[in-house]
Parts: sequence; structure tokens; C-alpha cells
Amino acid sequence: MYNQQAYEMGDNCCVIRDIAEYGAVRAQEVGAENVFNFTIGNPSLPAPAEITQAVADVMQEMGALRTHSYTSAQGDLSARKAIAEDLNNRFGTDVTPAELFVGCGASAELCSVFRALSVPGGEILTIAPYFSEYEPFAQTAGLELKVVPPDVPDFQIKLDAVEAALTENTVAIIINSPNNPSGVVYTRETLQKLGALLERKSEEFGHPIYIVADEPYRELAYDGVEVPFIPTIYRNTIVCYSYSKSLSLPGERIGYIYVPRKATDGEAIYTAVAGAARGYGHICAPSLWQYVLARCAHLRPDLTEYDRNRKALWEGLRKAGYEVAKPDGAFYLFVKVPGGDANAFVKKAMEKDLLVVPGDSFGCPGYVRLCYCVSYEQIQRSLPIFESLI
Amino acid sequence: MYNQQAYEMGDNCCVIRDIAEYGAVRAQEVGAENVFNFTIGNPSLPAPAEITQAVADVMQEMGALRTHSYTSAQGDLSARKAIAEDLNNRFGTDVTPAELFVGCGASAELCSVFRALSVPGGEILTIAPYFSEYEPFAQTAGLELKVVPPDVPDFQIKLDAVEAALTENTVAIIINSPNNPSGVVYTRETLQKLGALLERKSEEFGHPIYIVADEPYRELAYDGVEVPFIPTIYRNTIVCYSYSKSLSLPGERIGYIYVPRKATDGEAIYTAVAGAARGYGHICAPSLWQYVLARCAHLRPDLTEYDRNRKALWEGLRKAGYEVAKPDGAFYLFVKVPGGDANAFVKKAMEKDLLVVPGDSFGCPGYVRLCYCVSYEQIQRSLPIFESLI
Repeated sequence: MYNQQAYEMGDNCCVIRDIAEYGAVRAQEVGAENVFNFTIGNPSLPAPAEITQAVADVMQEMGALRTHSYTSAQGDLSARKAIAEDLNNRFGTDVTPAELFVGCGASAELCSVFRALSVPGGEILTIAPYFSEYEPFAQTAGLELKVVPPDVPDFQIKLDAVEAALTENTVAIIINSPNNPSGVVYTRETLQKLGALLERKSEEFGHPIYIVADEPYRELAYDGVEVPFIPTIYRNTIVCYSYSKSLSLPGERIGYIYVPRKATDGEAIYTAVAGAARGYGHICAPSLWQYVLARCAHLRPDLTEYDRNRKALWEGLRKAGYEVAKPDGAFYLFVKVPGGDANAFVKKAMEKDLLVVPGDSFGCPGYVRLCYCVSYEQIQRSLPIFESLI
Repeated sequence: MYNQQAYEMGDNCCVIRDIAEYGAVRAQEVGAENVFNFTIGNPSLPAPAEITQAVADVMQEMGALRTHSYTSAQGDLSARKAIAEDLNNRFGTDVTPAELFVGCGASAELCSVFRALSVPGGEILTIAPYFSEYEPFAQTAGLELKVVPPDVPDFQIKLDAVEAALTENTVAIIINSPNNPSGVVYTRETLQKLGALLERKSEEFGHPIYIVADEPYRELAYDGVEVPFIPTIYRNTIVCYSYSKSLSLPGERIGYIYVPRKATDGEAIYTAVAGAARGYGHICAPSLWQYVLARCAHLRPDLTEYDRNRKALWEGLRKAGYEVAKPDGAFYLFVKVPGGDANAFVKKAMEKDLLVVPGDSFGCPGYVRLCYCVSYEQIQRSLPIFESLI
């Protein structure tokens, strides 16, 4: 007498956590410095000092009672104003606080949006490689997740494959750029073409097909590459943002959903998102962090260290003979494995205490994902092991 | 093309928030001191000073990187250890960290537990008066919420009514004591009788009927009244706890779920709870607050102020001629309205800028709920208005 689907979701937890836990055990056995753990996308940079200061300031100035009280479910107005202002300053948009819903990080936000868009028989597309948690999120929301094959080796979007996967039941396509796990940033051209295709198909099917933009990595882009703000390219875009990576606050669960009023049924969908969140037990995002955001939404991460890691690992791997997707964003490298069997590679690597995640977990066999949010030293010391594995 | 159920949940948000928002508008018009708002269960006591100190200590000692990193989904071991230790010290239990899941407050926890217990055609009972959010939580989880009529005027539990409502499809009964909105604490005798009934019916139906104990108010009890720890009375009890009220942290979203291993299918249900939480987008409870809990799980609120409010309001109302349920716990009074029409009373009160919530919202017409987590002065100044309304 318990829910079988929920049981299975609890039992088959992600491969990534399993490997990471193996790493924790090995670290105790052989010393943390001898385990080369590239599995977990936990930022290795601390939150900016302004954040720590803002925590102290908020608690000092507002006092415990006001700081820790409930906010409205959609988030305190001060936070939503700061987020809107930041977006408008950067993208020339006219986002208003009423279009924003402060959420508990991208995962919870995606779940609410999936639920809000869920209709009987509804399908949502994702593009391989993709974040594996989309599967339980969609399943719980009552949507079928359909995977569009990867655009190898560039990891942009294969438009003909998207077109082939679109049906009358498609309610949305989820886009994650900069991409986990590929590290690739979708170009403006890619997004424009996708937008044009979706417009054409929306018209054909007689209902909108939304883009759900999963954007925890938006601020993590290198070499000046552009990360377009998708609502300015495609009107029917719903953004799920998280400060987990950009402000190094992954454990604190804070981000926002942006549902443009100008999107088709924009106001109704905002309401449905709020209702879905309510039915999932959302009361408000952690209030202290809302007030910190009200002061810090404009902050950007200093990417110097990630960039140094990225270059060192990318160059080292290519010198060793690996084929790597162009890592313009996030903190991941997506590496083609010699021989093509990622699981075999992962096992071989594990024997040398080098931990990476098979691309199979992201709907893309034949590749492994490396998180380079680790110490520079770990990267340097791991390169000879990578060399020995090719 | 959006989810109708979610839309309705977003659109028909709770009456309580509507009245509270009216209060906010009136406060701007006539001054906050002239609006007697008894609607929102937002603690009026600040969090204990030890909490504020612990926030500073955690951030200082652990540093931003460790403090704000992801924890495991079930919560950092240090927090679960502290919670287990606190429970065991108080109740002579043998709770282990492996039986605890640190959650984002009672609402999110209840949603995950409801989902974990949801089977096709499944029903969950609640006892009127009850927290109205159980309805969207159950509906989203796919359970039918069935309401057992109130035990007027004592607001204990009508066992024959529970028995009549139990069917083969009943998976659980949700118990909220100290109760929102009645302020009543279920006695040990009530709970023992309920446990015996459920045991008998579980045997008859051939499957367990769980108690889901919704316990945000457990620490808020007055005059030395006992709040029994239900798992020690009925084995198949799942506890959803929140620090929102006891430590005055409602906006921060932190609590825990306790699924005893000794409960029937205890381990599987823990797994299903974790899976349900995953499918709702739970990554971890806010990490800073987990580490604060690791240091502060043993803290208890100082109830002096609430108790003074409680007595003043209770006595004042009774003197004026109102019938009030015995307010042994939480920070609510449940008041029978003269004439029996709570909505009419609420409207009449509103005209005098006195804001209370109709019992209809809690499945119990003919009553209104008063939150006395307000200033003592507000209580004193409101008593003449209450007198004028009878």
C-alpha cells in the first residue's frame, strides 16, 4: 500500500550520486587528495563576499522576526523587483515583478512548470544530452518526456529531429543552455531557427508549444560567448532560473520562474504555476535568501578559476587525444570515450580512483561528463590518469 | 493547453490570504494600529537569539563554500543526528538518523508523504476542523481527502465517525495536534482509542492504515498539557514536523519527516517518500538551516508572550459571552459565532477592521479562527469590538 512510482524514484536514485558516494568512501580509504572526483556539479567557488555580508546585513537591519516570516507564495516584492530590474538592465526587456515567481531552485521550478503545462496525453521534448532528472519531474507531473537525439559532435540542436518528434500532444520543449552535461551554449542562430520551427508547428497544431528554458548556468559562459535571453527570441518562453551556480548557493534553494504576460495564456499559466507549486507544498522560497537577493540579484560570479580549470582540462584532454565538445559554458566537459563504451570507461577509470559520469545518464551513450568545478591541482594531477586511459 | 486543476489551485487561493491582503490594504488606509488582524499564523515571537548566533557561527566556522553546498537529499547527517538525539532525549525513543528526512517545512513534507502513500483509489481521512491546504496536497498526490465531522464542542476525535469513514481504500488518517484551527490538543486517551481502532481496521482490511502526524505546533502547549509523541502510541505513524512555529522560522522552510523502520513497510515508505520528494523537485532542505538545526534542534520556544495573549483573549471572549474551544495548544482560538453564520460574522467584523477567518475554511461552519500571535496591545484594544459583535 504505497506508491510504486515514488518508490522506484526513491530506489533508483541517480547514478551520479551513487558514484559520488563511492568517491566519499574511497576518500576515507585512500585520502581525499587521491580521489579524482569529477562527478558532482557542486560549485567549487564560494559565494561572493557580498552575499555573506548581505546575510549579516539583512538579519541585522530587518531583525529575526521580519527576516524569517512567511513571504507571499510568489516571493517578496523586494526580491521580485530586484530580479526584474537586473533582467531589464541586461536584456533591455520590460519584465515586471508580477511575471516573476521566486522558487526553490530550478528543479522545484521545473516541476511546477511541468505540472502547470500537463494535460492528458501531453508530451514534453528534451534534447539529448539532457539532465536526467527531467524524467522523474515529467513523470510525476503526468507528462511524457520524449528525447530528441543529440546533434553530434557540436551538440547544438538537430532541427529535423525536433520536427520529427513534435506531435499535436507536444506542450513544450525544454532547453538547457549553457548545457549540462555538454558544456555547449546554444547559439542565437540555433535558437532563432528553433523558435521559427516552433512557431510554424504551433500554428499547424493550433496551440502554443512553449520553450521551458532551464537556466542555472546562464552566467557561466567563457570567452565572451553570448548566452541569448530566450524570451527575446521566442515569445512563448518560460524561464526557470537558479542562483545555485551563479552565486554558489546550491544548498540554499533559491531561483525564480519568469512567465511573460505576453506569452499565449501568460497570465493563466502564471496562475497554474502558482497552483502547481501549492499542490507540491510550496509556501515560499527561503525568506532570508529572498532578502539577500533583493540586495544581490545584480551580482555576477568571478569565473577566473573555472576558466583556468576549463582550459587546463580541455587542453590536456585534447593533447591526450580525446574528442571534447566545445565547452563554452557551465562547468562541464563532455568527452567522447575511446572505444565508445562509456560504462566500461567509467569502470576502468574508477579502478584508478578517477570518477566521471557516463553519458548514458544523459541520454547520450559513448560520452562521459566531467565537472571541472574542482581544484586546479586535481585537474593537473588527473591528466596523466586520463592519458593512461586512452 | 494548461493544467486545469493547477490553474484552479492557483486561482482559488486560500481565503485566509485574501482576508490578510485586505488587511494590508486597510492598514495603509487607516494605519496598521487600527486594523485588528487575527488571520495569519505567522509567529509574533522572533526566533531565539541562539538561532541568530548559530547562523553567524555556522557561516564563520564552516565558510561560505561548505555552508551553501548541496547536502544529500535526505539531509546532512549532522542535522539528522541532532534531531534524532533530541527526540530520543524527550520521548525515550530510539529514532535513528536513517529514519529521518530533512524537509522544507510541513507542507512540502505532507505532500511527499501523501504522494508516497498514494495508490489508485486511495483515500486519506482528516478530522474537521482541519488545515484547508490538505485538500490541494491530497488532490495533487492523487488521494481523495475525506473529512470526518467535528467532535463539537470539545474538538477531540469522534471515533464512531472515524470508523464510519474508514474503508478498504483508506491509506491513512492525518492528525494535527495541537490543532490548527481549534487550538485543542488531542489527549493520550483520544490517541490510544484511535490507535486501537486503526489497528482493528487495519487487520480487518488486511493492510496498514497509517497515521500521518502533522506536528508544526508540537512545542506550543500551555498549562503543562501533554502532547503525546504519537509513534509511541501507534506504530504505523509517520511524523511531519516543522520548525516554523517552534523556532519562529516560518519563511525559511525547514522541518523533518520521521518514518519509523518498525512501521509496516517502514523502509519502503521512507524510500517512496524520498522518491516522491524527488519528483516534486526536492534537492535538499536549505543547507544553512540544516547546519543551524544541527546546533539548535534542542531549543524550545519561550511561550510566555503567547500564553499571556491566549489568556487575555480567551478570558475576554468568554466574559463577553463567546463559547471558545479549550485552547491548550498552538496559537489559535476557535470561537463559536453568535447566530451560527461565520461568514456573516466575518463580514460584520471586517466593517470594524477586525479580521478573523471563517471556520468554513476548515470544514467547520459556525466558528471563526483567531490567531493570537499578535501584540498584546492588539488583543486588549480589540476586546471591546468583539463585545460589540455579540
